Amino acid sequence: MPDPKHLHDLPTPALVAERAPLERNLATMAEALPGDRLRPHVKAHKCTALARRQAAQGHRGFTCATVREVEGMAAAGLGHDLLLANEVLDTRRLGALDARVTVAVDSEETIRAVAEGGVREVLIDVNVGLPRCGCAPEAAGRLADVARTRGLEVRGVMGYEGHLMMVDDRARQKQATDEAMELLLHAHEAVGGGLVSAGGTGTYDLNEAAHEIQAGSYVLMDTAYAKLGLPFELALTVLSTVILVSEKWSVADGGLKALGMDHGDPTVDGASVWFCSDEHLTFSPEAPLRVGDRIRIQPAHVDPTMAKHERLWIVDGNEVVDVMEIDLRGW
Amino acid sequence: MPDPKHLHDLPTPALVAERAPLERNLATMAEALPGDRLRPHVKAHKCTALARRQAAQGHRGFTCATVREVEGMAAAGLGHDLLLANEVLDTRRLGALDARVTVAVDSEETIRAVAEGGVREVLIDVNVGLPRCGCAPEAAGRLADVARTRGLEVRGVMGYEGHLMMVDDRARQKQATDEAMELLLHAHEAVGGGLVSAGGTGTYDLNEAAHEIQAGSYVLMDTAYAKLGLPFELALTVLSTVILVSEKWSVADGGLKALGMDHGDPTVDGASVWFCSDEHLTFSPEAPLRVGDRIRIQPAHVDPTMAKHERLWIVDGNEVVDVMEIDLRGW
Repeated sequence: MPDPKHLHDLPTPALVAERAPLERNLATMAEALPGDRLRPHVKAHKCTALARRQAAQGHRGFTCATVREVEGMAAAGLGHDLLLANEVLDTRRLGALDARVTVAVDSEETIRAVAEGGVREVLIDVNVGLPRCGCAPEAAGRLADVARTRGLEVRGVMGYEGHLMMVDDRARQKQATDEAMELLLHAHEAVGGGLVSAGGTGTYDLNEAAHEIQAGSYVLMDTAYAKLGLPFELALTVLSTVILVSEKWSVADGGLKALGMDHGDPTVDGASVWFCSDEHLTFSPEAPLRVGDRIRIQPAHVDPTMAKHERLWIVDGNEVVDVMEIDLRGW
Repeated sequence: MPDPKHLHDLPTPALVAERAPLERNLATMAEALPGDRLRPHVKAHKCTALARRQAAQGHRGFTCATVREVEGMAAAGLGHDLLLANEVLDTRRLGALDARVTVAVDSEETIRAVAEGGVREVLIDVNVGLPRCGCAPEAAGRLADVARTRGLEVRGVMGYEGHLMMVDDRARQKQATDEAMELLLHAHEAVGGGLVSAGGTGTYDLNEAAHEIQAGSYVLMDTAYAKLGLPFELALTVLSTVILVSEKWSVADGGLKALGMDHGDPTVDGASVWFCSDEHLTFSPEAPLRVGDRIRIQPAHVDPTMAKHERLWIVDGNEVVDVMEIDLRGW
């Protein structure tokens, strides 16, 4: 049992997840994408305790975004099959880990870095439309040859259709995902290997081409993903204390240092959010509040919100039932 | 001497400050607002090592935004005169500190919390136009009476003209600051006490009414403050490695988890920024880059950027000359 035991004893701002919707999200995804059909992305929560919950659902491989995440997962004994789905040039810390580590590569330089760092397995990262990483689809086969020449095991391809996660017309999203995956499958033919890795929470049920889906946000969700009508529930809020009530507005002690702001302002049920300052939320509630009341702030973007907190409190109504360290932060 | 010793050996993304402009910013402010005329705000850097540099310039009192900041400053031996310039209801951790701690109050509830937490000194926080904390100016005198009745020492008033920091017409900014401070001085007459505390980096030279200015951003600066033409230089960047170069865009490994995003996208000299992802910056440079090159990303907002990093590297050109823990993060 954690100490404190009651919601009202938590020092605020506090990152809080409701147990029941969290459990339902885990179960819903495990039913849709059982076992190795899901390679959960830990960048969304940066928390080995939550990764352990995902492993308990049967998902044995994990996706990471940073070297620190790979290190932390390996140290937590969750290194059965870790994919670093980002390119890195400084790979020294990866080769030495007691874990199976596969790294995304998309250029001769990133292949060289991986080989020199002592990593043994790679995926060829293919650009499928998002202007970010990944080689041109037509370059994938040649890069696979380069990697094999350097003694690397090429496990297959990955391609993240990140530009399609927030498309709110599902038919259009499905068609665009199919088109993106056509590029990836075409590259896969040239690359070889047994693995095609792609996808995210927004396309988890539409991406039928990938062998495994790299979803992470589904566990806790945020207000941006909540707009898509997916079967996952908002489980994450930032608990905050009302510290001022005036005629026109109220202020709570959860501000932009406690919230991911890149998707815009957070949301408070039954209130209109005016703006966030470093440590404050200025808002106008529909029903009057009192100084000392506690409110739940819903973040617009789960990933960077998690990265700002040291711990996640799991609650069941007003009872605090667990606490998890957010132990994969930093680089 | 820190290890690593060269810029190119730093794991990226890395928070980096140039020594020379940092030193000049410290000196310029100490000349403009010597000694106790400045009460540096540590929320901007969350770093006791930098606070120590400010103390060495003669500024003995500090401003804090969170209980954690007050605790950390006290633990670092910088507790000569700490002002928590925010309202807090959970004051249990403050009363026990081996430091002089003054807390802002703006309501009967916050006065009661402070008194019950064992804090002995307060400032009456007066709203001077920013829709956030602070009592109505006409309520200040009554609240001072309430505080004194509870046995608290009322040191005076504070009022933060935060809505005026980014006004880019200095004449208009000066006039609006004068009007805001008129409210504060009027409240001060009713409150009594020796202290009038206000201001920030944007009004440090315009606010002539306050006895002390609560500026913090001046030490490191950001692209938002840089637009104001103040005599402080941009000292802070996020060092990042180029991991992809394509015909149309390049990608570096510094993304929105490494940058405060609430003031918008960061800036890269000689390049056009497209967008930030969790761990990536997509941009198009004017001159061609190569994979492995390093770039400096200028954050739009210094405070939340600092809060996302564990350490600040101080560099002199390519040489790493110091490393500072960002030890006041969290709550």
